[in-house]
Amino acid sequence: VRITKTRRVGDGVLQRDFEIEVAGEAVPGVIWTPDGTGSACLAMGHGGSQHKKTADIRIRAVRYASRFGWVSFAIDAPGHGNRISAEEAAVEQRRTLARLRGDADAVSLTSAAKNSYLNDLAAQAVPEWRAALDAVLESDLLVEAAPIGYWGVSMGTSIGVPLLASEARFQCAVLGLGQLHPDHVEFEAAAQRVTVPLRFALQWDYEIRTREYGIALFEAFGAAEKSLHINPGGHLGIPPAEAESWELFYQRYLV
Amino acid sequence: VRITKTRRVGDGVLQRDFEIEVAGEAVPGVIWTPDGTGSACLAMGHGGSQHKKTADIRIRAVRYASRFGWVSFAIDAPGHGNRISAEEAAVEQRRTLARLRGDADAVSLTSAAKNSYLNDLAAQAVPEWRAALDAVLESDLLVEAAPIGYWGVSMGTSIGVPLLASEARFQCAVLGLGQLHPDHVEFEAAAQRVTVPLRFALQWDYEIRTREYGIALFEAFGAAEKSLHINPGGHLGIPPAEAESWELFYQRYLV
Repeated sequence: VRITKTRRVGDGVLQRDFEIEVAGEAVPGVIWTPDGTGSACLAMGHGGSQHKKTADIRIRAVRYASRFGWVSFAIDAPGHGNRISAEEAAVEQRRTLARLRGDADAVSLTSAAKNSYLNDLAAQAVPEWRAALDAVLESDLLVEAAPIGYWGVSMGTSIGVPLLASEARFQCAVLGLGQLHPDHVEFEAAAQRVTVPLRFALQWDYEIRTREYGIALFEAFGAAEKSLHINPGGHLGIPPAEAESWELFYQRYLV
Repeated sequence: VRITKTRRVGDGVLQRDFEIEVAGEAVPGVIWTPDGTGSACLAMGHGGSQHKKTADIRIRAVRYASRFGWVSFAIDAPGHGNRISAEEAAVEQRRTLARLRGDADAVSLTSAAKNSYLNDLAAQAVPEWRAALDAVLESDLLVEAAPIGYWGVSMGTSIGVPLLASEARFQCAVLGLGQLHPDHVEFEAAAQRVTVPLRFALQWDYEIRTREYGIALFEAFGAAEKSLHINPGGHLGIPPAEAESWELFYQRYLV
């Protein structure tokens, strides 16, 4: 793993930018490390129109490092973050917020087009995540055989489900704000292969998703230990208590 | 409150049986107290065919007292525990387990009959709970203005919802395994008046309930802060991690 920049971000915590090459494309990543060798590892998948250092990920990664001694890492998803220009990112963010607001003129894909888009996204993103995980595990930043967890909601779940289905090194995962659309056979098959202990968070007052498809995804997961947590509010309104409960989940399963 | 029996049940924790009289009927109760004055108070409502000292309640009450210094209390619901003979209780328990197993010859009430039964149950049980709460608060077992929470799943929710709707002294509640049946207008109105922070637990593979009615009850609650936690498994299979999360919920809201 090629470290391109290192920055102290508080309490012995270092934030290291890195870059890996996958299928001829440069994939930018970031890794947050505690003082000393990390005792556990978290892969954090950002949401659509966000990037690897989105506040939600960064704040928790720094906290996990300083409080629990965990290493966290994230990569920019295809077509996100430093893989596109700032102008392209701004356009995409406006488009996403318009969809979240339910604006009538926001572009809405047909279900078949969306399923096809998500399949393509997974086909590119999953090998990138696996390569990033290889790179992190080959470093000397973690204790040997450190347990590995995944976190990702919304697009982080769209990518996380096929990732968890094909990657046996994850021991548990927090997913959320995801859904299983009718006839999305590839995603359903992947969800059935997700068998690690699982937390799944849904917001009940979705602007852009439907409740039934979220519950359908929960039901599809192959995990024996899985919990669905439903809270009121919109896509961006996961309450703080829910997010705090994730660290207890990881404390339980990253051992 | 008339204490009838006191027993040490571990780590400075006392279990005191008591009795109050409500509408001419003796209501047996139990209160678990920590070493020293209780800093918070929990009312625990048992499930159908169970009683006030059912293992699930007793074990948590003792733990809450010894670990957190909380007082917990419970009363036998109408037609339960010491309010019926041991033979009657055994018959009721066999009947309930048969229903939970889905036995074909288990008596199943019509929806209207069930709603009417639950209304009658609430009409008797709610004043009993309020009288028990009065008695506990009049004792010197709690610090002044100690925060009060409610816990009760299944029948503990059938009684808990109308209790919380009519009793402003509760600050938060954990409910679960409950449902809102069609045309149960009284229960729906009560749920809408439940506005304290709320945790609601459902088991996804119900033998005797339906998922939609459980979700309907969650939606009916008037609370702004409410979380629905869904786990796989049957009515009696709430996983340990879920039960452990309740004490974090109380730690957050009983302040």
